[in-house]
Amino acid sequence: MTEQKATNVTWHEHKVTKDERSKLNGHKGAVLWFTGLSACGKSTIANAVDHRLSLAGKHSVVLDGDNIRMGLNKNLGFSAEDRAENIRRIGEVAKLFAHNANFTLTAFISPYRADRDAVRALLQPGEFIEILVDATVETCEQRDPKGLYKKARAGEIKNFTGISDPYEGPEKPELVLDSNNKGIEELTNEVIAYLEKNGYLNA
Amino acid sequence: MTEQKATNVTWHEHKVTKDERSKLNGHKGAVLWFTGLSACGKSTIANAVDHRLSLAGKHSVVLDGDNIRMGLNKNLGFSAEDRAENIRRIGEVAKLFAHNANFTLTAFISPYRADRDAVRALLQPGEFIEILVDATVETCEQRDPKGLYKKARAGEIKNFTGISDPYEGPEKPELVLDSNNKGIEELTNEVIAYLEKNGYLNA
Repeated sequence: MTEQKATNVTWHEHKVTKDERSKLNGHKGAVLWFTGLSACGKSTIANAVDHRLSLAGKHSVVLDGDNIRMGLNKNLGFSAEDRAENIRRIGEVAKLFAHNANFTLTAFISPYRADRDAVRALLQPGEFIEILVDATVETCEQRDPKGLYKKARAGEIKNFTGISDPYEGPEKPELVLDSNNKGIEELTNEVIAYLEKNGYLNA
Repeated sequence: MTEQKATNVTWHEHKVTKDERSKLNGHKGAVLWFTGLSACGKSTIANAVDHRLSLAGKHSVVLDGDNIRMGLNKNLGFSAEDRAENIRRIGEVAKLFAHNANFTLTAFISPYRADRDAVRALLQPGEFIEILVDATVETCEQRDPKGLYKKARAGEIKNFTGISDPYEGPEKPELVLDSNNKGIEELTNEVIAYLEKNGYLNA
């Protein structure tokens, strides 16, 4: 506020609060953090939830490999250190969107528990919804839409989660989606039901 | 879409488009990139514009030192290289918000032309609105709300823009705000008028 003194204007700086943004959007903001193996369905489910929310007039955003690895995090690789920085940056961006009253749907393998917990710690209680998209390596390997498992088995991809790199499952995820046995629509319904039941869809 | 094959569900992935998000929010998205010396008024004006947009039911976000240097970019310093990476990341985040139909108001000195032009290049024509907050070093030094100019003159801060580091003004900014002679309310009005005149406030 000191800046105004020089211009002799009476001016009260008003930063728009999180609550005011929630009222504007008609609902709270939160991070829906989808985690799980490659090809478990994270991105497809996140996009389906995003679409459903959008049709209902809710404000949401998807952060996934398509827009993050090609943009914000294009200078990061797949070492443990780079994976940690990858998740850290995504967490910070997710926070910005959530505090702007958006449902922020992130779809990254995010294999390390410590990295996910660090994102949780950035947010207020209730703002971080950890969603395990649960599928066995066998299920994912059978799908293998991009042929990545095949390459990993052949040793062409190093540090591949579930094959040559560990996946540390969440200890207390807010939601577990059974992607071995259920289809996308059913799983999408489960996410929406969680948001509804826990009061996220209202301001 | 290949992922669904394994679950035998007919499902058409629908990514919510930029246009659909614009319709939902009732207006386009754009980046309002405020640039200028320390204490020229960037952050105050950005917050004032944000508040005004919010009162009018428009969706906006402010990216400034408060939420970026403490969060996303807390691992960056003030060398030319770090400044470039600072602006690059902010540009990528601004793009995410803009493509989500938000007015993204960024308030960073962003002294190097090449860095700002790189952000412009990330966006579609019309999505990047470069706003020079024009104030002389003398004006800013007289205000000096955080005592930074004093410290820079004393040599306590290195690489200080306008004192020991260059500021490269924009060649063709979309808007120039005369912060030497005008108050915050008048300058805020000028920004809103620009958005109105150029059709940004409608979907």
